[in-house]
Amino acid sequence: MPAAPRLITLMTDFGLKDHFVGVMKGVIAGIAPRARLVDITHEIEPCQTRQARYLIGQSWRHFPPRTIHLVVVDPGVGSARRPLLVEANAHVFIGPDNGIFSDILALPKAKARELTNRKLWLPELSATFHGRDIFAPVAAHLAAGITPAKAGKLIKDALQGPSMAPVRTGKRFWTGEVVHIDRFGNLITNLTPLDMPELGQRRAALKVGYEVIDGLSPNYAAAAPGSVLALVGSGGAIEISVNQGRADRKLGVGLGSPVELELYAVD
Amino acid sequence: MPAAPRLITLMTDFGLKDHFVGVMKGVIAGIAPRARLVDITHEIEPCQTRQARYLIGQSWRHFPPRTIHLVVVDPGVGSARRPLLVEANAHVFIGPDNGIFSDILALPKAKARELTNRKLWLPELSATFHGRDIFAPVAAHLAAGITPAKAGKLIKDALQGPSMAPVRTGKRFWTGEVVHIDRFGNLITNLTPLDMPELGQRRAALKVGYEVIDGLSPNYAAAAPGSVLALVGSGGAIEISVNQGRADRKLGVGLGSPVELELYAVD
Amino acid sequence: MPAAPRLITLMTDFGLKDHFVGVMKGVIAGIAPRARLVDITHEIEPCQTRQARYLIGQSWRHFPPRTIHLVVVDPGVGSARRPLLVEANAHVFIGPDNGIFSDILALPKAKARELTNRKLWLPELSATFHGRDIFAPVAAHLAAGITPAKAGKLIKDALQGPSMAPVRTGKRFWTGEVVHIDRFGNLITNLTPLDMPELGQRRAALKVGYEVIDGLSPNYAAAAPGSVLALVGSGGAIEISVNQGRADRKLGVGLGSPVELELYAVD
Repeated sequence: MPAAPRLITLMTDFGLKDHFVGVMKGVIAGIAPRARLVDITHEIEPCQTRQARYLIGQSWRHFPPRTIHLVVVDPGVGSARRPLLVEANAHVFIGPDNGIFSDILALPKAKARELTNRKLWLPELSATFHGRDIFAPVAAHLAAGITPAKAGKLIKDALQGPSMAPVRTGKRFWTGEVVHIDRFGNLITNLTPLDMPELGQRRAALKVGYEVIDGLSPNYAAAAPGSVLALVGSGGAIEISVNQGRADRKLGVGLGSPVELELYAVD
Repeated sequence: MPAAPRLITLMTDFGLKDHFVGVMKGVIAGIAPRARLVDITHEIEPCQTRQARYLIGQSWRHFPPRTIHLVVVDPGVGSARRPLLVEANAHVFIGPDNGIFSDILALPKAKARELTNRKLWLPELSATFHGRDIFAPVAAHLAAGITPAKAGKLIKDALQGPSMAPVRTGKRFWTGEVVHIDRFGNLITNLTPLDMPELGQRRAALKVGYEVIDGLSPNYAAAAPGSVLALVGSGGAIEISVNQGRADRKLGVGLGSPVELELYAVD
Repeated sequence: MPAAPRLITLMTDFGLKDHFVGVMKGVIAGIAPRARLVDITHEIEPCQTRQARYLIGQSWRHFPPRTIHLVVVDPGVGSARRPLLVEANAHVFIGPDNGIFSDILALPKAKARELTNRKLWLPELSATFHGRDIFAPVAAHLAAGITPAKAGKLIKDALQGPSMAPVRTGKRFWTGEVVHIDRFGNLITNLTPLDMPELGQRRAALKVGYEVIDGLSPNYAAAAPGSVLALVGSGGAIEISVNQGRADRKLGVGLGSPVELELYAVD
């Protein structure tokens, strides 16, 4: 049996009402007809590179090794920003060099390449759609068997944005923030219990907006319908939710809002 | 030529703006790299198990035998609700035991199993995303060749909600309801002429909201643009429509609204 | 290695909240289990055949030869409008005969067939969903190997809408229009520099709404954030944009709005 076909994931801010995503897939199919495609999302808010950074960071681990991740949120398309390829943990990431791969570049042994081999690109470049002209064809050529080294040479200065980790503000205090609001209105924070060994089995309170939440719940249904709760979400981070409701609306809280975690004093 | 790859359909309330659906597909690809995936919808309203029940009931027959249908609308995730597998008509259905499979369980010879074989699940369970941790990997293992019996043992008490059939309220009268409003604003009812042999070739009137509709039209275009009509829709049920318009807005009618059918008296 | 599987693209106005698109894919999978499916969009505004015409015209070239394009925007479903197959440039197009394929029919050597071979359709036709009952199964049979000639016989009178080309209104003047507004609010016009050799390297001004735009920019980032600019977009047409903003909102302009291009006089 031949090797399983290569997988390419797609994440963009192109939305689904236009032909842009379909056209990228057409270009891929022309180069790598057996590659398999999985959409992660195309509903990144236009130009919100930070949202793309968050979502690719949450997604890539769940795909098999050798997956190629195509991320195109590219407000600087057509300008001097470089096209990038990052290799890390046996995955490959392709997209513009604008900070979307900050967390990938922070992985051990991550390597970045500037895409410079124009033979892999479409022959004519548009000013506005490098997803079609550069990133999709390079991803397809990789899926069809070329090595990353063929796509361009190593660089050391790929753009890395500031850390999104929470700040420890006292012996029993951390200040994090809301880094994502999901479809259900859950407020996902950057507070991850695995990175806070002090938390252990101790109870903690969370403050967000005017709300103080006492302790972590085991699941949504542990709170009464309509009640605010906090729990460890599927990505390992603390999230603030309303059982069968929307925490973002109930708490009036948005992206970037601070969330304070206070460990209870040991008696 | 090897056997055609197994097909897995996906229906969730996860929406398309987050990474949730993509991550489920990544988990599947890691276990069953040749399985083919078809999205039915991810726009079920959050937690609306009844809508999922309706849409999977309308969808499954159109897929080939041996298709695996993954339905994850799961407000009780992480609580005591059981994870379920249903076999019926040579199709397999996987999702939470919360009534979404009521109509599947009503099929002749349907068999239900509680998913209990944790070896098929991801090693660590989150409290909020069993679509990724339980349902997707079990679907993938089935696509890769295990039998349903390996996933868990038969149970007799899977949750079945009340019937969604219309009520006969007189010799010439039935009362049904609006069970779905589609993208075009068509009001889909549970009144299905095939189940009403008395209807035969006789004419009937429909009452919904303040509107009385006289007889069934052969197609949308048989009514003037902007006019209300009723016809037998693609699922075999009577639907109320406005040619090139939206019946839901024109009639001010919502999900669950009663629809009365009156057969004309034979002269 | 066997030939690469056939590709079928899908474009509809069915949206993604219902089961319609999934069901079409189920029908295809039952007939052509190895065909590969790519969604172009399902968010065509209900019944907007002109939008479908525009988007398929922008998309098909980017797919490999022998791709089958399924386009179902079909306000006349169930009425006398004919089901159509068009062959052009080694691609195949399938959908209703209502003008959506006007630009395809205008390609050199394009051939149209009326779909008449009912053996390829589902055995029972609904009045409302020929995407499922006629178009998807015909596309699938083609993907599985039948020739277009098996689907129906040639016709000469397939419906072609009026040209969407701009009008030359003077030696230095053209009047075009906004033919598409994309997800980012960019106003895509039908003014294509390649068709205007007089433009060459000369500068031009564009008038749209109350705005006069002086010259074409090389890319979005060449204008200050929030500023209006014009550039040649990825489809080869002039588009009016706002860097990191929405031109449709800033200019208060809609589909069909006139756009005037004036070449600067040579000194």
